[in-house]
Amino acid sequence: MIKAGIIGASGYTGGELLRLLVNHPNVKLELATSRSLAGKPVTLTHRHLEGFLDLRYENPNSENIRERCDVVFLAVPHGSAMNYVPELLDGDTKVIDLSADYRLETSVFEEVYGITHRDPRKAAYGLVELHPEVAEQDFVASPGCFPTGAILAAAPLAAAGLIDIALFDSKTGISGAGITPTETSHYPNLAENVTAYKLTTHRHKAEISQELARLDQKLRNINFTPHVIPSIRGIFTTAHLFTKEPLSTDELRSIYEDFYRNKPFIRLPSGIPSLTAVRGSNFCDVGFESDKENNRVVVLSAIDNLVKGASGQAIQSMNLMFGLDETLGLWLPAAAP
Amino acid sequence: MIKAGIIGASGYTGGELLRLLVNHPNVKLELATSRSLAGKPVTLTHRHLEGFLDLRYENPNSENIRERCDVVFLAVPHGSAMNYVPELLDGDTKVIDLSADYRLETSVFEEVYGITHRDPRKAAYGLVELHPEVAEQDFVASPGCFPTGAILAAAPLAAAGLIDIALFDSKTGISGAGITPTETSHYPNLAENVTAYKLTTHRHKAEISQELARLDQKLRNINFTPHVIPSIRGIFTTAHLFTKEPLSTDELRSIYEDFYRNKPFIRLPSGIPSLTAVRGSNFCDVGFESDKENNRVVVLSAIDNLVKGASGQAIQSMNLMFGLDETLGLWLPAAAP
Amino acid sequence: MIKAGIIGASGYTGGELLRLLVNHPNVKLELATSRSLAGKPVTLTHRHLEGFLDLRYENPNSENIRERCDVVFLAVPHGSAMNYVPELLDGDTKVIDLSADYRLETSVFEEVYGITHRDPRKAAYGLVELHPEVAEQDFVASPGCFPTGAILAAAPLAAAGLIDIALFDSKTGISGAGITPTETSHYPNLAENVTAYKLTTHRHKAEISQELARLDQKLRNINFTPHVIPSIRGIFTTAHLFTKEPLSTDELRSIYEDFYRNKPFIRLPSGIPSLTAVRGSNFCDVGFESDKENNRVVVLSAIDNLVKGASGQAIQSMNLMFGLDETLGLWLPAAAP
Amino acid sequence: MIKAGIIGASGYTGGELLRLLVNHPNVKLELATSRSLAGKPVTLTHRHLEGFLDLRYENPNSENIRERCDVVFLAVPHGSAMNYVPELLDGDTKVIDLSADYRLETSVFEEVYGITHRDPRKAAYGLVELHPEVAEQDFVASPGCFPTGAILAAAPLAAAGLIDIALFDSKTGISGAGITPTETSHYPNLAENVTAYKLTTHRHKAEISQELARLDQKLRNINFTPHVIPSIRGIFTTAHLFTKEPLSTDELRSIYEDFYRNKPFIRLPSGIPSLTAVRGSNFCDVGFESDKENNRVVVLSAIDNLVKGASGQAIQSMNLMFGLDETLGLWLPAAAP
Repeated sequence: MIKAGIIGASGYTGGELLRLLVNHPNVKLELATSRSLAGKPVTLTHRHLEGFLDLRYENPNSENIRERCDVVFLAVPHGSAMNYVPELLDGDTKVIDLSADYRLETSVFEEVYGITHRDPRKAAYGLVELHPEVAEQDFVASPGCFPTGAILAAAPLAAAGLIDIALFDSKTGISGAGITPTETSHYPNLAENVTAYKLTTHRHKAEISQELARLDQKLRNINFTPHVIPSIRGIFTTAHLFTKEPLSTDELRSIYEDFYRNKPFIRLPSGIPSLTAVRGSNFCDVGFESDKENNRVVVLSAIDNLVKGASGQAIQSMNLMFGLDETLGLWLPAAAP
Repeated sequence: MIKAGIIGASGYTGGELLRLLVNHPNVKLELATSRSLAGKPVTLTHRHLEGFLDLRYENPNSENIRERCDVVFLAVPHGSAMNYVPELLDGDTKVIDLSADYRLETSVFEEVYGITHRDPRKAAYGLVELHPEVAEQDFVASPGCFPTGAILAAAPLAAAGLIDIALFDSKTGISGAGITPTETSHYPNLAENVTAYKLTTHRHKAEISQELARLDQKLRNINFTPHVIPSIRGIFTTAHLFTKEPLSTDELRSIYEDFYRNKPFIRLPSGIPSLTAVRGSNFCDVGFESDKENNRVVVLSAIDNLVKGASGQAIQSMNLMFGLDETLGLWLPAAAP
Repeated sequence: MIKAGIIGASGYTGGELLRLLVNHPNVKLELATSRSLAGKPVTLTHRHLEGFLDLRYENPNSENIRERCDVVFLAVPHGSAMNYVPELLDGDTKVIDLSADYRLETSVFEEVYGITHRDPRKAAYGLVELHPEVAEQDFVASPGCFPTGAILAAAPLAAAGLIDIALFDSKTGISGAGITPTETSHYPNLAENVTAYKLTTHRHKAEISQELARLDQKLRNINFTPHVIPSIRGIFTTAHLFTKEPLSTDELRSIYEDFYRNKPFIRLPSGIPSLTAVRGSNFCDVGFESDKENNRVVVLSAIDNLVKGASGQAIQSMNLMFGLDETLGLWLPAAAP
Repeated sequence: MIKAGIIGASGYTGGELLRLLVNHPNVKLELATSRSLAGKPVTLTHRHLEGFLDLRYENPNSENIRERCDVVFLAVPHGSAMNYVPELLDGDTKVIDLSADYRLETSVFEEVYGITHRDPRKAAYGLVELHPEVAEQDFVASPGCFPTGAILAAAPLAAAGLIDIALFDSKTGISGAGITPTETSHYPNLAENVTAYKLTTHRHKAEISQELARLDQKLRNINFTPHVIPSIRGIFTTAHLFTKEPLSTDELRSIYEDFYRNKPFIRLPSGIPSLTAVRGSNFCDVGFESDKENNRVVVLSAIDNLVKGASGQAIQSMNLMFGLDETLGLWLPAAAP
């Protein structure tokens, strides 16, 4: 059994790691930390897990984490993960970081996040559909939620060098903003509403750009505007892709089917994807339609931001890092409706 | 492997049986019927199951259902199940009926549902926490969604003969009304609203009364008023129980803990239960508080109407009928939040 | 023109007073206070009022409020109103208090709210359908939101001495909890959920009891349990009233029609009331059905908690106190759907 | 008093016309038609209007509509309005058509809607902020909901000849789809979800293109993709406008302020517009931000689809057509939250 630890287990991504790992056939949960809740049962905050585990939160500064865990997930805020990584990696423990600390080139990170990096090392980018090399790594930077939906929507066309302008208009559920109540998450503000934010300056744009540039160095015109919709979970990405040549919907399907062959968590349903069909699951459903008039292609992707957009994807990386089938513990259908 | 069939698989309870059975370690899905969709892939209507099964809908009149299936679930409307039961039971096939046809005494059924029963036989009532005899049966009538929440909330006090008046004010998500769009399920009518219906005459009252009378023959003053809230899943039951003597909250806890000892799907969390903590799962969470003034006890239960209130509970019966651990295939935490 | 001031104008009830008063034909808004926002435009927080008023928040300790205002609305927390009332009433200014400070007998207030009253004077209770004497007063304590819905549902039967047990199971939208984000109002906690709270101990019970006792001194068995539903506005009250004798639905209608004759804001629609039909308006819609079995009557009332349950009702009192038609400025239909 | 009639008054736009007209100081409601409900009280379907009017639905074929009404609103499906217009206009009655029948050039209409036009006459396009000539007309084609939000977002930059590519990613509440329950409006399908539809082929694109071309003949690259969000009312339009030259956010504000000077229903709040701030009102709130990198400008507009996007805007036209202040009967703030 793989002994797993979670640093920062009291939030939504921590809770989702726990939910998926309690039933993972090859994993034993060894450790869950929370600075403010140390000593309290994990089920005090994650009441839905009552009956599934009897861990108590520990202090994240515990000395022997590295010895106790074969793998550690970091579900801490940006800027904090770099405090844990050097020591954790100084041994055989594998580390999967769900924060942004190691996703970007160091210089880009420092500019976008306004933080001097205290541990500028390289990590594999854990979007395993594009990065099979994750299987060989001990350290993975798990992607952000918006980039996961956006990159998976555009990657096949970017890899084919067909995109002229990429514009991502993304719609997320509010759980991506975390477990702490805010003005945005206040029910009277969010219900019956939709909000855009950081219209042109969201940090996730750097991550999207970096990955798409890897697939097509010439693709420079990349645009991203996020919205919050009244939904708990899910990211629905509308990728408006202006292409260098006209593409029919059939050609699109063929390109996407080829690109995502043997990727178990990418589905290409006929029709328009739906958050309902992926809720609680690790799938990314992708659909598309060609606009005959303006060399525009509309590609839609639907993910659960807490699963494929965060914790599920991190476990998918873990499976590969330990030589397991990537679907282990994750082969769960959405609970639709 | 248990070969399982579902008659009426295209609705919500059918879909939920499929979702849970595709991952059940001891079950092979053999058959899913739909009169109107015969020949079409099951995933055409249950898109979230894409990748999990490649069944096609069959016509429900197929001749050899009994031979092909070790167990058949009936997820058909009230009044239809009795068309299938006699033939299906004429062999070794076990049958679990999710309709109301066999839940009530025949005479009560005929009065409440206004239908002459064409097959008045007895079935075990599949609320297994109260009916362990389900394990010995070939034929089970699985409970209604409201009765599940209401009976589980009141049973410990009814069994102790302590209830004077029982009043159930229930709040359900709209999925209980089914997959077909109606005025009630029309988003502009339901969102930001709450609706009561069949204020004094809902059919489920007969089921609640029958079961509580079984526990306490003298309990006659039983009242039930259902509401629909803007939620997809879940039933939150507020049981206002006027008791024959004052009971402290501590005494309540002790009575409930004793009654539900070793019932893996009944949880008694501290605080107030939440639909969020049971969504998608087979749990029934129960909480309570004593009203010092009026010999009233407020008991709250939270279930997912499609799981513990329908399909999960039916599978729980199946597990017992086949000598399996009752939690098999059902030991899934809610995907909270 | 009546010069009106609002102490505590930055919250939801303050905003709703402003929304209704900007279009009131006989009112000029003179003053809106907010301790933390003094000097800032009122539309900074109430963006929907942009274009309707150009007031700036003032400090609530301004010296000359009494001189500047013909009427002052107090939309401050419980325990604070009593700091303003003595001085404001020391002149010709009329005062309408939306807090709980003056709704209850002083001794009851002190026990229920745990505060020593520093200004134990009497106020008219501003539920004008039951208290026409409001028209003669300078000082009115405007009712709580839950009591408004509960009392209006039960009053006709209480006045007729017909109620044996009154049980109010109330469902409120979250705006009643105020403008400040909390765990309860956090979208992922409230959406797709329903929560009960203060199951047997909510402070509004004292208000309900006081008013019903006024109508029927012998009515003692009064019970109240509030719930929060995923809705911004609205209170739907399910009054389960056990009566001393059986009553038919026709008899009920006759009793309610007589009792509420010439009350413009009480409507008795056929069928079941709906929050949608009252949203944003000052109406209280009431419906009912007789339970033949247990001498139970189910009475339902629907109000907008911020209008009839708070600010609209307060303006209704103001209209009467100034000799105006009670519907002035309030005769607005709901914006349904 | 202006005597007003509504053909097709039982749907949402009909209901919204009634809600606004019952309180319009210069209007008397004379007629409301519904083929299927003829003879029934209007409040049977519009329960929120109980107490405000006692009209009964009439048959739309009534002979003397023209004689009885000074103005007739057509709130009928596309393709039906042209059945009424010729006769209604054959006299002094003014007509405001809320359907699509007269919004487009006849040839474009016939292509986009697949209907041969039986009455190819010209109408003024009732987006009064751009078409002051409405004031001189007897016949107005009131704009579609999506075009209202999209055109108002882009018009100032189009008029300045600054737009290279216009891409509208629109998010609408479900009431735009009408009063009849559908799969899309089924609560379990819409809640916690977001749906895109007619990704590249929505009919409203022709309307957007026609109007923007009127402002800038060279603007050809226009794109439109609509979405439905879980909200009853509101359209939030994200206009991604690639401009011919870089524009700062300050320059944008200046251009928009100049363009919309003295337009009472266009507001330019600081920050990001919100559906909450316009819900139930006739306002269009517009915000913007410049993307320094790609010559992109993000313009956001928020309207209530049933008011500014349909019935309110139609009444705004009516006011002008009768020489009244355009705000009469419409100067209502949103009921936020």
